[in-house]
Amino acid sequence: MSENKGILDLEIEEFEKRVQNSAVKISVIGLGRIGLPTAVAIAKADLPTIGVDINQEIVEFVNRGKLRINDEPGLEEALQKVIENKKITATTKISESVNEADVIIVCLPTPLEINSKKTNYQYLLKGCSEIAKFMKRNSLIIIESTVGPGIVENEVIPVLEKESNLVAGKDFGVSSCPERANPSTILTDFNKIPRVVGGIDDKSTKFASKLYQFVFKIEVISVKNCKTANAVKVVENVFRDVNVAFINEIAIFCDRIGIDVNELIEACKTKYNFIPHFPGPGVGGPCLPVNPYQLLDAPESKDILQVVRAAREVNSQMPEYVIELLTNALKEISKNSEDITIGILGISYKPNVGDTQLTPIKEVVQKLKQMNFKIKIFDPYFINKEFSSIKIEENFENAVTDCDVLILGTDHDEFLNIDYKVLKNLMKSPGIVIDTRGNLSPSEIRSVGLIFRGIGRSVK
Amino acid sequence: MSENKGILDLEIEEFEKRVQNSAVKISVIGLGRIGLPTAVAIAKADLPTIGVDINQEIVEFVNRGKLRINDEPGLEEALQKVIENKKITATTKISESVNEADVIIVCLPTPLEINSKKTNYQYLLKGCSEIAKFMKRNSLIIIESTVGPGIVENEVIPVLEKESNLVAGKDFGVSSCPERANPSTILTDFNKIPRVVGGIDDKSTKFASKLYQFVFKIEVISVKNCKTANAVKVVENVFRDVNVAFINEIAIFCDRIGIDVNELIEACKTKYNFIPHFPGPGVGGPCLPVNPYQLLDAPESKDILQVVRAAREVNSQMPEYVIELLTNALKEISKNSEDITIGILGISYKPNVGDTQLTPIKEVVQKLKQMNFKIKIFDPYFINKEFSSIKIEENFENAVTDCDVLILGTDHDEFLNIDYKVLKNLMKSPGIVIDTRGNLSPSEIRSVGLIFRGIGRSVK
Repeated sequence: MSENKGILDLEIEEFEKRVQNSAVKISVIGLGRIGLPTAVAIAKADLPTIGVDINQEIVEFVNRGKLRINDEPGLEEALQKVIENKKITATTKISESVNEADVIIVCLPTPLEINSKKTNYQYLLKGCSEIAKFMKRNSLIIIESTVGPGIVENEVIPVLEKESNLVAGKDFGVSSCPERANPSTILTDFNKIPRVVGGIDDKSTKFASKLYQFVFKIEVISVKNCKTANAVKVVENVFRDVNVAFINEIAIFCDRIGIDVNELIEACKTKYNFIPHFPGPGVGGPCLPVNPYQLLDAPESKDILQVVRAAREVNSQMPEYVIELLTNALKEISKNSEDITIGILGISYKPNVGDTQLTPIKEVVQKLKQMNFKIKIFDPYFINKEFSSIKIEENFENAVTDCDVLILGTDHDEFLNIDYKVLKNLMKSPGIVIDTRGNLSPSEIRSVGLIFRGIGRSVK
Repeated sequence: MSENKGILDLEIEEFEKRVQNSAVKISVIGLGRIGLPTAVAIAKADLPTIGVDINQEIVEFVNRGKLRINDEPGLEEALQKVIENKKITATTKISESVNEADVIIVCLPTPLEINSKKTNYQYLLKGCSEIAKFMKRNSLIIIESTVGPGIVENEVIPVLEKESNLVAGKDFGVSSCPERANPSTILTDFNKIPRVVGGIDDKSTKFASKLYQFVFKIEVISVKNCKTANAVKVVENVFRDVNVAFINEIAIFCDRIGIDVNELIEACKTKYNFIPHFPGPGVGGPCLPVNPYQLLDAPESKDILQVVRAAREVNSQMPEYVIELLTNALKEISKNSEDITIGILGISYKPNVGDTQLTPIKEVVQKLKQMNFKIKIFDPYFINKEFSSIKIEENFENAVTDCDVLILGTDHDEFLNIDYKVLKNLMKSPGIVIDTRGNLSPSEIRSVGLIFRGIGRSVK
């Protein structure tokens, strides 16, 4: 390959050979939840990898083989190995990485702006603008960031073209390959969940597919274009948001009519075409509360997607329903809210991860504060840290002792084997337990003399 | 058992023995889609069975071992066998059947009133009122009819008690065991899909469970009460209505943004937690368009269930979207609607059944009539019958010859291997094909020179 030639000048067979011979250089932009494991997986597949992040601390951690998170099993070991093998380095300078790269993989965040409910694409677009300044002709850019369908075509590519003075599809390639992994099982998901790739042209799609097949050893589904790949990612998560909302509203119905929603779900799922989802205090994390808005933001969504909109409403109102359950339970004891102490167990948006991104428990806590309750919080992933300006307790006992009410906010494994007799003795009497996750046993809790409420499980 | 004793006076072990010894008499009330196969299955299990229907013609057919429907494989043969073995008879007189019965299984229809969107429980309640007049003390009544949660407790039992002067739970038992079988595969579903049973007391639940285990040789899930069993049936179908609505609105989005919804679904389903549903012209049949209203009718649903409500809206509007696709396609040809002939292929609510209950194609046809198109219809299950006052053609060729537009309304197997070249030559030119079921090939149809539109598949 002469100086002026880039990776997309190759035939696909030649590209494949170079990949196998570790002769394709990869740049990974953004070393967060997805970017770092992606970079590590690529380096592990023996491709020379340079990771880029604007955060100096992250870069230093990576270069020392260290993680700043503690809930991604196997990642630190894998990182250390590729560092030792000199397959990966990290830098804050995008030029150093992109200058040399044949393939640039973009894993920049596309977070939700909570107030406006709009996706913030500025990190992605700014990153792409920087990439464009340094990228080689005929390199391939793969967008892993989750974006609404149409965003790559209408926003990302114009930025890349403008800053590079190159033409997409002629002078460089672009593919969308949205990540599909779940926090806490990202490394195993990489090798288990097929990837979906759609590019601006046949070559972009084929090269990206070939690379991902090689690195992740999984099935790659090629789709017609970037917007299809991006729609796939968004729709599969919106499907979940809709179904969680459906079962949340059914759970509220169950409370009203006197049915246990868990019993209902167990029975429903014996029908082959019913797929269980579970009620909760709302949905959190980087995907479920974000992706619906990415879909709704598209101009093509105007006046349609009523089910998606209703689902968002329902899930957004679940923290309020937790408060309703509390208010209802408090009728059984007579105490002023200033005299009531509430212990919160778990603040992560899902069990067994230390991640409070858009966790619905935040809204629960804020509402409780407004209502003048005293609040104590325990989450084993955040000991001694702060959440909503409340310092998190050192242990379970501290959090529950002298509480009038206990709210299970996240069903971390640690909370599933609580000895209710011990709990009752630690709490003030009569204690109230509110299970927002459907994972505790109402009958066992009631049998020790505690008052119980659960989402869809309040029937006695 | 003395004259004054009934089946519920027995211990469960004794009941089981009698069942095994063909010494329990069963009455099945209502010999429709579900009642007849249920009666046949019970008779096949060697229990003496008397079926009741107010329709004299149905009763005569049954007693002659004949069906009036042609889409339930194996049912006629099974019926003839139990007739030969003298295990079943049918009658129009409820007294003859219920007088003698130990267990009375109610399979009466609970249809939707189309205009009011309310379920009509009058057939069920009137039937129960008749049953109550003749039933023995301590017999067991099993409600198979699909009803909203709460209807058995609040409406059925009061009627049974009033007309019998007996007390439910003391003088007779009641269980809900809603059917879960699908038209066209009812007999096989009976032995495949677990049953859910919830009674007004422990004995009602246990006796009904035992009977269904014996007759159908399947898992029976016992739930806490009738309303839970009824909620299970309704919720599992509303789940499907919601998910079909979701993919319907996504399909409309796909048409707008230029994505093929089938490609999207195929890719989404490679994620382990995405379950595919498919767009269509709306949902029909005895369950999906009915059960949501049974749930929404409950007083406990007031002001909640927004996702369920939105889904109903979306699915109800799909016939209108079919018309939109047509209108859009017609822009490519210039002709007045009076000069345009439209052929409809398939009117059943789902493929390979001869059943037009609440079929969305009815609304499509009505709208087309209002628009002054000439309409021809072909459906192999309804040859020479009438649909919306239009006589159904004798064969495919008659229906498509000289049509400007062909609308695939139901994807019966017969329609999936159309030779598009032959079709194009039979139709007027330029012909339009509209696929409401996503089962035809847009590229093949376009390759012979036909214009194509499909729900979520209109992208070229």
